[in-house]
Amino acid sequence: MPGSGSRAARPGPLSPMCPSTPLLEAETSLPHPGRHLCSWTRPGLGPSWASSVVFQSCRSCHLLFRAGAMVPHLVPRQLVRLFRWQVACARGASVQPRTWAAASRIPSLLSPWGAMGTSRLVCRSSSSTSPCAPEVVLTQERYPVTRLPFSVVSEEDLEAFERIIPGRVVTDPEVLEASNVDWLRTVRGGSKVLLRPRTSQEVAHILRYCHERNLAVNPQGGNTGMVGGSVPVFDEIILSTAQMNQVISFHSVSGTLVCQAGCVLEELSRYVEERGFVMPLDLGAKGSCHIGGNVATNAGGLRFLRYGSLHGTVLGLEVVLADGTILNCLTSLRKDNTGYDLKQLFIGSEGTLGVITAVSIQCPPKPTAVNVAFLGCPGFAEVLQTFSSCRGLLGEILSAYEFMDAECMRLVTHHLCLTSPVQESPFYVLIETSGSRAEHDAEKLSDFLEQVLSSGLVTDGTVATDQMKLKGMVTCT
Amino acid sequence: MPGSGSRAARPGPLSPMCPSTPLLEAETSLPHPGRHLCSWTRPGLGPSWASSVVFQSCRSCHLLFRAGAMVPHLVPRQLVRLFRWQVACARGASVQPRTWAAASRIPSLLSPWGAMGTSRLVCRSSSSTSPCAPEVVLTQERYPVTRLPFSVVSEEDLEAFERIIPGRVVTDPEVLEASNVDWLRTVRGGSKVLLRPRTSQEVAHILRYCHERNLAVNPQGGNTGMVGGSVPVFDEIILSTAQMNQVISFHSVSGTLVCQAGCVLEELSRYVEERGFVMPLDLGAKGSCHIGGNVATNAGGLRFLRYGSLHGTVLGLEVVLADGTILNCLTSLRKDNTGYDLKQLFIGSEGTLGVITAVSIQCPPKPTAVNVAFLGCPGFAEVLQTFSSCRGLLGEILSAYEFMDAECMRLVTHHLCLTSPVQESPFYVLIETSGSRAEHDAEKLSDFLEQVLSSGLVTDGTVATDQMKLKGMVTCT
Repeated sequence: MPGSGSRAARPGPLSPMCPSTPLLEAETSLPHPGRHLCSWTRPGLGPSWASSVVFQSCRSCHLLFRAGAMVPHLVPRQLVRLFRWQVACARGASVQPRTWAAASRIPSLLSPWGAMGTSRLVCRSSSSTSPCAPEVVLTQERYPVTRLPFSVVSEEDLEAFERIIPGRVVTDPEVLEASNVDWLRTVRGGSKVLLRPRTSQEVAHILRYCHERNLAVNPQGGNTGMVGGSVPVFDEIILSTAQMNQVISFHSVSGTLVCQAGCVLEELSRYVEERGFVMPLDLGAKGSCHIGGNVATNAGGLRFLRYGSLHGTVLGLEVVLADGTILNCLTSLRKDNTGYDLKQLFIGSEGTLGVITAVSIQCPPKPTAVNVAFLGCPGFAEVLQTFSSCRGLLGEILSAYEFMDAECMRLVTHHLCLTSPVQESPFYVLIETSGSRAEHDAEKLSDFLEQVLSSGLVTDGTVATDQMKLKGMVTCT
Repeated sequence: MPGSGSRAARPGPLSPMCPSTPLLEAETSLPHPGRHLCSWTRPGLGPSWASSVVFQSCRSCHLLFRAGAMVPHLVPRQLVRLFRWQVACARGASVQPRTWAAASRIPSLLSPWGAMGTSRLVCRSSSSTSPCAPEVVLTQERYPVTRLPFSVVSEEDLEAFERIIPGRVVTDPEVLEASNVDWLRTVRGGSKVLLRPRTSQEVAHILRYCHERNLAVNPQGGNTGMVGGSVPVFDEIILSTAQMNQVISFHSVSGTLVCQAGCVLEELSRYVEERGFVMPLDLGAKGSCHIGGNVATNAGGLRFLRYGSLHGTVLGLEVVLADGTILNCLTSLRKDNTGYDLKQLFIGSEGTLGVITAVSIQCPPKPTAVNVAFLGCPGFAEVLQTFSSCRGLLGEILSAYEFMDAECMRLVTHHLCLTSPVQESPFYVLIETSGSRAEHDAEKLSDFLEQVLSSGLVTDGTVATDQMKLKGMVTCT
């Protein structure tokens, strides 16, 4: 479904198909005004900035645009002040629009969907550097931003950090490079120190010290974001959750997982799948992204249609506030309606209100049967009617519904040399079912396909049940 | 599942079974310390108080206790100050524990589950008065509470309200009686005026006026709560949402319903069911409760296991803050991860942060087949194993799992003259399935029952598919 965890609606996948795509900024400079298929907005550039980035893809030329970047983010400042965020400031750095860097200046636009199984797409990694990659311009040189009056990290500060987390204070510029540059290699911070705490108490000590010393801090998870939100703008201290990667508990009856924020999503998926459950979210970047970062950015992903947003599936959080206070909302009670649900504020807050250090999340049972159907539709009205029809006939086993238009398919077949599994159509639909009984699911899917084909809602279709064919179709879309 | 929308876990149903049940207050006065089967906590007594009420049921004598009522609620005061809540104060009225009224002083303990279809149980109504009902003691006389220095409603104020909502300012004491006393008839306010706005703008005008005049306000939905949270403590102005009962929009493809806060849950259920959807929550009080009140109290209900909490299913809210500012978060976009999700703060806030005036909610497709199984289990370990087993075998069609022990069954059979549908067992389990294909669901359920019966997890069981038998079993539990 477009806009609900849809890969097609996100700007990432278009980039590798159009290596010369200009990434423009101002709405007015878009080449085909009024023909923009989808827009995608994210608060951007970490806790030091209160800004948002809007992406749009054009219906006419199918290129990706960055429109209206750095628009001040309309969030009441009281909320930020509430938690006395003094370290990583949210006092509004002065930012103004400027022409966005052309994609030709971004040499390694790898697909974020590389983890899906084809050799053509390169797997996404948390490290965005390679020895031959050209230098990324410093953010403070590219944008007219002004550093706020935070202190500069001194030798005494480094010694203090060394006392808090011995052996895990990184100042080597080569190691820091991967944490200063974002995955798309579009923005670059100038941090001189990376801290790798292992416990919430260490995070609390670090933040308390920084709070007293007026040092700016940039929390960082897997650094897999695509809006530059995970790297410093100036010389903020990078506080990485990479070594906070322990599962705290898992309840085999309720499926409640409690873990540290630095656990990699794919490893958690493996962990719960061995116990008969699945994570309620799945992303292309799952091999590198951290669960704490997923929660901080309110990630949606491929399972959104079935399991809903993290606001419903996250049961509890442990968060360290800027002054070092540990806020313990790490409940694992599924139905908890006692008072204000404070943890909700941190879901999607991108680290601006505190550093998420542990997560309690509800895992649904693992489905035993998965089917994928890829269909051709004669028009957009039929795409919607097919959706209504499949919600009725497939009901509880429907787990994904995605669509793309003919031009998208042309780009996919042309640039990735893939063959469409169905005959040419104005629109294409991918439907995934996940259930507990293969023969029941197959029968439901078969009846649904018979109905939509006989009624003319769908003109052609194919079904995959084995894993290879499944991955091929998902990659295609 | 106990604690997740379970009726058995709520204090209400026990009351009519034990008419002489003492409702005690202090934890220390419980007769069998350490034998408390479940506890249930709710913030209580409306926006003027920051308190919570804890209920516990005793494993030994199976009576219901009110333990630790009026414990100061641990919510950071900054959050309350954030919205400049000046009218209905949250500055902490001075309250101390005192012995709770015995049930013998509460003459008409009607079952909240009366809407379930038996003639023995009386249907719940928003009005808690009857001509012969004895007087309920005023809350301010029962508890040592102190009125804060709010203004008293004057004739000029009534005239001002009359100008804002002509003909909808109620001062008749007989009409006010139903709004001053809670449904359980345990607490009683002394409000002299009831306002019935129809639009958010009218609510905003009223609150702005009250803010300027320093008048206390008590928002009220269906007045069906059982912890006294919906009625005034002193002479607060009652702001009823009863006339804000219009459906604003319904999207037949996505199932997104947008409506005013005063819509009755049962009427909304009927509305969306006619269009092939169901409300994601269902309550015993659905015939009277308002959707705004459901959201304000973060109601769970019977469908919690399947569709999750309101934090996941509520897509947007419109809220009027204490100073009359209208906060419009009434989005209907299912996947929205832009910035702080402010609406989450109001879900479960019980009217302390603002008055919810409109709700946008995600409705799932209506299941076409419903089955209920009632089983006898030899022990609590088997109850848990049966739950794990049914999550695996029933998977996506499982919609409810409730349990009760032998003593609960004894009380039900004795006081309600019902017959247990299965042979006597230490524990009983009720399982509900909801799916899109009757024959598939029946086959899954049959296979599940065969497995749990052959493995000894369950010693006896019965299945119902027709509506009358279903209701009988649900009422029994």
